[in-house]
Order: sequence, then C-alpha cells, then structure tokens
Amino acid sequence: MHAPTLSSAPSKAETVAGVASAGRIRNENFRRKIVSAEEAVRYIRSGDTVAISGFASAGTPKRVTPALADHIRRARASGDDFTINLLTGASVSAETERLLAEADGIALRMPYQAEPTARGRINDGRMDYVDIHLSHVAQQVWEGYYGHVDVAVVEVSGITESGELIPATSVGNNKTWLDVAEKIVLEVNSWIPDAMSGVHDIYYGTALPPHRTPIQLTDVEDRIGQETFRVDPARVVAVVETEVSDSANPLTAPDATSQAIAGHVLDFFAHEVAAGRLPADTLLPLQSGIGNVANAVLAGLSDGPYRGLTCYSEVIQDGMLELIANGTVRYASSTALALSEAGLDEFVRNIDFYRNHIVLRPQEISNHPEIVRRLGIIAMNGMLEADIYGNVNSTHVMGTRIMNGIGGSGDFTRNGYLSMFLSPSTARNGAISSIVPMVPHVDHTEHDVQVIVTEQGLADVRGLSPRRRSRVVIERCAHPDFRAELHDYVDRAEAAPGAGQTPHLLGEAFSFHERFTRTGTMRANPEQ
Amino acid sequence: MHAPTLSSAPSKAETVAGVASAGRIRNENFRRKIVSAEEAVRYIRSGDTVAISGFASAGTPKRVTPALADHIRRARASGDDFTINLLTGASVSAETERLLAEADGIALRMPYQAEPTARGRINDGRMDYVDIHLSHVAQQVWEGYYGHVDVAVVEVSGITESGELIPATSVGNNKTWLDVAEKIVLEVNSWIPDAMSGVHDIYYGTALPPHRTPIQLTDVEDRIGQETFRVDPARVVAVVETEVSDSANPLTAPDATSQAIAGHVLDFFAHEVAAGRLPADTLLPLQSGIGNVANAVLAGLSDGPYRGLTCYSEVIQDGMLELIANGTVRYASSTALALSEAGLDEFVRNIDFYRNHIVLRPQEISNHPEIVRRLGIIAMNGMLEADIYGNVNSTHVMGTRIMNGIGGSGDFTRNGYLSMFLSPSTARNGAISSIVPMVPHVDHTEHDVQVIVTEQGLADVRGLSPRRRSRVVIERCAHPDFRAELHDYVDRAEAAPGAGQTPHLLGEAFSFHERFTRTGTMRANPEQ
Repeated sequence: MHAPTLSSAPSKAETVAGVASAGRIRNENFRRKIVSAEEAVRYIRSGDTVAISGFASAGTPKRVTPALADHIRRARASGDDFTINLLTGASVSAETERLLAEADGIALRMPYQAEPTARGRINDGRMDYVDIHLSHVAQQVWEGYYGHVDVAVVEVSGITESGELIPATSVGNNKTWLDVAEKIVLEVNSWIPDAMSGVHDIYYGTALPPHRTPIQLTDVEDRIGQETFRVDPARVVAVVETEVSDSANPLTAPDATSQAIAGHVLDFFAHEVAAGRLPADTLLPLQSGIGNVANAVLAGLSDGPYRGLTCYSEVIQDGMLELIANGTVRYASSTALALSEAGLDEFVRNIDFYRNHIVLRPQEISNHPEIVRRLGIIAMNGMLEADIYGNVNSTHVMGTRIMNGIGGSGDFTRNGYLSMFLSPSTARNGAISSIVPMVPHVDHTEHDVQVIVTEQGLADVRGLSPRRRSRVVIERCAHPDFRAELHDYVDRAEAAPGAGQTPHLLGEAFSFHERFTRTGTMRANPEQ
Repeated sequence: MHAPTLSSAPSKAETVAGVASAGRIRNENFRRKIVSAEEAVRYIRSGDTVAISGFASAGTPKRVTPALADHIRRARASGDDFTINLLTGASVSAETERLLAEADGIALRMPYQAEPTARGRINDGRMDYVDIHLSHVAQQVWEGYYGHVDVAVVEVSGITESGELIPATSVGNNKTWLDVAEKIVLEVNSWIPDAMSGVHDIYYGTALPPHRTPIQLTDVEDRIGQETFRVDPARVVAVVETEVSDSANPLTAPDATSQAIAGHVLDFFAHEVAAGRLPADTLLPLQSGIGNVANAVLAGLSDGPYRGLTCYSEVIQDGMLELIANGTVRYASSTALALSEAGLDEFVRNIDFYRNHIVLRPQEISNHPEIVRRLGIIAMNGMLEADIYGNVNSTHVMGTRIMNGIGGSGDFTRNGYLSMFLSPSTARNGAISSIVPMVPHVDHTEHDVQVIVTEQGLADVRGLSPRRRSRVVIERCAHPDFRAELHDYVDRAEAAPGAGQTPHLLGEAFSFHERFTRTGTMRANPEQ
C-alpha cells in the first residue's frame, strides 16, 4: 500500500480529492457509495440529531461539515426553519465550529466548544449548549438522553477489505456515533498518513448497565481493543473522499508566566517524591490540558530528573513527541493527536518508533472514571478563577458568559490521584484577579481541588479546613495587588456573627466581579 | 459456639463486660492484652492522629471513645493543651461525637459529622473540619495527606483462633485504619450477635498507584474478599471488652411531604422503564441516603411492580429488611448495618435468610468510582437547596455554616448512572425555599445534577441548557409561594446585557439568603 508522508501531502487546507484516496477504500461495497459532500448532506433533514467526529483540531470531517453548513444556510435562506442538534467529541476544528454557528441552524450543541462565533451564539441565547463531562457523553447518548441520533458523519483514514474503518487523528466518540446512528456518512481522508494505522485501540467492551464488566487496563500502554471501528454497512448511506489536513497550530514558546507556573509544579513534584508520596523517576500518569501553561509544564519535565514518565490525557500535541524522543516520556495515551504539519511530519518519519509509544483511544476510555482512579492520574487543568476556599470556575466569565466548557477536567479531577489547577494570577493586563472571594460559577468544588498554582506560587490545600485554606491560597497564589483586599474580606467574614465553617459576606462575595462589570477592572484603585 | 440473640442481650446502653465476651477472644496472644478502657487510652498522646471505627450509628467503639473523651478532658483541665486529630468512617454515634466535641480536644476532624455539638465547634472555628468524598478517605490517609496515624481504635465482634478480626456492624475505613496505624486498640463487643459473622466482605485488593488492578465485582452480591480483617498482632497494644448496643433509632413513618416526593420518584422510574432507559422489574442498583425522604422512597418500592431490586449504598436501615423479606429487594450491599434493636432482632432471628441477601463492605468499595460507574447506580441523595440551574448545596446553611458534610453523595452522583436530589420545597415552616436563584455553596455542580425532586414535582434536566433548566426547576420544584419571585429573577437576568449561557444578576443572586439573615425568612411578604 502506498504510504504518503507529509512531504507528499498538499499544503494546509488544500483539497485534492480523489488523487490518492482510491487506495483507501478497499471494500467494493463502500466504493459504490462514493458521492460528493453536497450529495451526502442531503441525508440530513431539519430536526435531525447529527453526531460528527472531531476532538480539538483533530479529525473533524473536512468536506461534509462545510457542505452541511451550506445546506443549512441555503435552507434557512429559503425560509425553511432548518435546525439540527449537533453532537461531537469535544470542540471541532475552529473553522467548522464557525461555519456551523454562522449558519444559525444549530438548535443544541453538546458537549464542548472553544470558538468565538459559537460562544457568541450560546451567550446570546441563540444556541442551546449542554456542557457535560466528556466521559459521560457516550453513555448518555447511548441511553437516549439526547433522543435518536439520525446521522453520524465520521472522518476515517481508510476502509479495509472486510469493511472495517481505520480511524483518523482523533477517536473521540466515533465508536459510539457509528454504533447508534441510523444513517452514517463516512469521510475518507487520504491526507492522514497510512502509517497511522495501528496507532488506535478501539475498545468494544463497554455496555449499558447492568451488563458492564471490568475494563482490564492496568497500564497506560495496555491495548484492550482493536485497531479499527466496526460499522454496519447497511447504515452507511454515503462515502465522501477528501485529502485535507487537520489545522493544529504549532506551539508557541512558553512565556515567563507559564514558565514560572511550570517551575512551581516541578518543585511540588520533587517535594512529593521526597515525601514518598510519588514514585521517583516516573511519578504517576500525567494528564494536562491544552495551552501555554500545560505546554510549559511538559517542556519543563525534560529538564527534570524524570525518565519513563507516562501520560494519560485527551490530546497529544507537538511537545509530547520531543518528550518521547528524548526518553522523558515512555508512553502517551490520548484520544486525539493534534499535531501541526511539522509535528505530523516528525511523527510519520519516525512512525516505527512512535508507534511503540503512543495510543489513541475512545474518549470514553481516555476519561473513564474507572481507569482514571486505577492509574492514579495527576490531573493538571487550567481554570478561569479559583476562590479563597478552593472552588474553581473553569467555564463562566463573570459567572454568566460561557468560555469553552468543562471538557474532561472533571473526569480527571474527581477520580484522579492529585488534582491541580493552574492559571496566571491575573488576566486582561492585570485587571482581573484569578483569585476571588467567591467564584460565581463552580465547576470543581472545594472537595475536589487539592493544589492551586499561579506564577506567584503553589497552594497545597490537601487536608486543610476552609479557614486554613483561605490564608494559604491568598498568600501563595493571589497577585500581591489583590492580597490586602482578599485578606480584609476574610478577616471581616471570620469576624461576622455565625461565621461558620466557610466564612463569607454574601453581600460582598462578588464584589470583585461586580466592580469589573461596573468599571472594567477588579482593581479598587485602577491607577495602581 | 454460643450464639446470643437479641433476647439474651442486655438492654440498650447497658454494659455487662466480660460476661459473654470471653468466648469472643479466641486467641491467647490477644487475651493477654485485655485491659480496661481507661488503661487503653493511655496509649493516646497529645498531638496524635487517632482513627476510630464507626459509620453512622453503627460500630463506634462504645467504651474506649468515652474514656478517650475523659482522658482529653482531664488532661486539658490540668492545663495541658491536649489535642488529637480524629479520623472516622463517616459520622460516629451521636453520643460519642458529642463527648469528644465537648472535651474540646479535637484539633482536626475528618471526613464527616452529623451532630450538633461538633457542628457548633466547627462553625465557631474551634475545630478544623475537612469535608471530603468518603471514597477518597482511605487512599488519602494511606498516601499520607493527614500525616502518620498513631492509634487506631476499632470495634470488632470477635477475634479468631488465628488472630483475625470479625468485623462489627460497620466496616467503614477499618481495614485501612488497621493497615496503617502504629498502635491498635481493639474493642471486642459481645453485644454483636455471633450470627453477624460472615456477613462481611473485606477486600484486600486495593493498593496505591501504580499498583492498582481491576476490582472484579460485577454484581451487587459478588464477594471479592474475606470475612475477617487481618491485623499485625505486634501493633495491637490493648484489647478492651464490652457488651453495649449500637444506638440506631427506629424509623418513623414517612410524612405526607416525604410520601409525595417518593411518589414523584416512583412515577419517574415508571416513565424511564416505559422509555426503555431502565430495566423493568429490577431497575438498576439503588443508592439512597438516610432520613425520612429516603425511607419513604424505599417504602414506596414495595407497592410498585418491582421484584428483585438491588441496593448498593452506605447504610442499611430497618426498612430494608422488610423489602428483602417481601422479595422487593434481592440483595443489598452497604458498609454499615444501622438497625434498631427491633431490626437487629429480626435480622438475627432470620440470619440464615438475610445472610444470603446482605453484605457489608469497606467504604472504599461501597463508594468506589469504578464500581459505582460499572453497576450503573441510581443515586438518590438529600440536599439543603438547589439553584435554578441545578447546582446543589448539600452542606452549608446560608453558604457559611456547615450542617453535616458531603459524605458519599459525590461518589454516587458523579459516577453513577442517574443522579437525583430530593428535598421538601421549603424548610423551617416555609420560611426557607429549597429552590433559590444561586446556591451560596456548591457541592454538586450543574454538570452532575440530573433530576431534582420536591413534593411539588420532579424536574428532569438531563440534556437541557441552563436557560431551559431554570424554567423547569422553578415550575416543577419550587414552592408556589416563591415561584413568581424566581421567575422575575430569571426574566430580568435573561434581559440583562451580556446575559450569557447562565444568566444571573450577581448583586441579587443571594437575595433570598440575605433576606433570611436579615428578617428570619426568605419570604418577601412574610404574612403570605
């Protein structure tokens, strides 16, 4: 089989349909179903629930989704109130998210998004958005909470002779979409290197209760499934060919704030190893989110004493390849491979090496409570803000406007071994404090948050009562410009009658947020 | 072996030390360690971390704990600043909790309490209290977050010839306490019927990561452990004999409000069965908390179409025996058997029957995320209040004063199959609404709460965006006297600039609570 590498692939977003893809559909039954994207989307009717592939920048259908956005826009332009409910893995590619949101035909979106146009529609009340734990999606859809799934649109990299599907750069909820959808549209993307085959581990052992059995995975590298998706060919109504790249951006170098946060995290790991609470050399499997801070932490691990680390998370980015190549990381499991073009080139050129160090799983497994608890994950996630008692807001700016969503942070935080939240101590050039008296939206409760880290320092609140937590969080994590006001709040709250286990002054609890809404800054003296 | 039944046992709280207990300590090595409770507590020094048995009313050491309270009180009376850190399973017997709190020598209490004196000390800032998920306790203590455990005090019902321990009426964290404590005091309580032997299943397969393996439990009735605790005899410093009953109160008959809530729950189950989302006849394993509402729901199941139900929860109360006897429940797993004397009498008289239908496990297993997810638990827990978007406050009255603690509600809610919260729509003779604009403390987030039930009705918010949730919660669950004000709040919040995904008016979000603090009622027109 011809194995195209990145050097032979078209430039980003360029489409060369049909050139190399013929070899990817090796089953005659499926070849007979090849149609254009425009023909394929005719299977989608107003009112349908449509489940599409995609997790972060990886694996969104490249041609059918834009065609679907067109399909919706044209129908609505002609006076038809055409809407669909849209289910995905997590976010989908930014362009796709924007096109679909602009078409104004998404009635309900689930379970995650991270794009400005979609965010705007949601915050304007024009798009219903259900923001749930990523590990809960598959079981909830299977169970029927979101009704019948009419159409699945799933990107794959190929179809085998026997009619099984070779997954693309993300797995996400694709197994579930293929299992439950009445009609299936496959988009076969020959941009994905053939060499990707075999990187996936698709587990077919999940079930609805009372038929569940233990998931026999005890190490990050264990394979418990098969390399391909099963699909009922009778439900495949269309196959669309494409050859278009994913759209991950190259990582930027960590800034000083991110490096400071990473430094505190690495010091904490060293402290925990010295205390005998983490294994030396290998720690425990790491989960970290996407973004500057997460990348800085991962980059910092290269300079530490660690060898043979493991990662069990949602997304693998370019930085992970370097960690694997230099031996810092032994194995990384995720549900999406969100590599830049340069990253993919590196991956493909050394596929025989990386294949032994990377696996992509369904998000039901990458985020599964059973596995997260068993492996003892060290969960590191970003946040918008934390309050002085350790409650974390990950999703709602000023308590009302959604940013992205909770994603998998709750899956890893609640069931993991160590739960850490990382953020710069201020945002918007210092106008917003990330440490506030009370968060106006709680995504992670005081019962779940163990360590808070900003560039100022690290607050380890394990085993501390709320009154002790507040002092540690303010002293270690708050920006110095906000500390006095936070201390004053706590002092007065503790002195109030009936102060209680968790002292608050309810009339002032949101004073930082109300001041920001009123004046554009949380600072009492903006000239400061 | 002599098998005392309740009819031969002394009356409640009466102590007849040494009468029947000689036969309970069948190992000579342990018999040589028999001392009085007063002698035993001398092993406890100021600054120690002391872990004691007990879960709800079941299995608290009856003689050593009061002696410990005396020990602390005398030391403090003589000018010594004697304090200990106290770790338990959950709450301990109310009398024990009160004695220890009154002694004023508990520096830190973990992980749960439910008694007025202790609550008062905590809310006054005189006792540090760490309120964590019950499934997290064992691993966190083992890992050393709470420092070295100096002394364990564990009630058992006997010691075998080979030196293993026969558990009492609760298992709780006892396995962990026996594993980690430097010194161990055993209290052998011959009030516990010999017939209890074999009801327990003590699992020895847990470990710290990276050494964890799947827990091979796939049905509520599976036995995966052994009937007794292991103990290192070298660490057992004292054995105290006692013959004192647990102190569970008989259940009271459900009131009209509880029955109305139960009715809505049962209607919901029928609806879910009809929709094919729950198995007919057997549903899925039920978890329910303690109290009037939970009891009403369980009682109501007897009148429904269900046969062969299972329960997987923390505590078995009297009502469960009737459900088992009449075939409604096939099997109940828990970590504590909190029976009244009449209940225990019924249990012992028919022990050969009940032994096949009841098992007691460590709370690490009764609440384990892996098992809760696998079995597909239907979680039903009480709450103090819910907000219009589905966030639940289980612990903090008016956001500051602790009531009891989160207990296991988070273990079952996050990882279970269906998460339901139950409460009367008002408290304090109607002065407090259980549905508020925003809860001032979040124990269960909007991502985790699926169904809210009051006597007014049931709000099924699965798959609903926040703006849809608020209407359903107000209409279905709020007391009619509060609905207009709640609707008005939502209307104005949604109309505000930048209303967002979750509309709120931060300046008014706690208006119900602030009014209560100011006027003693949440009602705008108290004469209403």
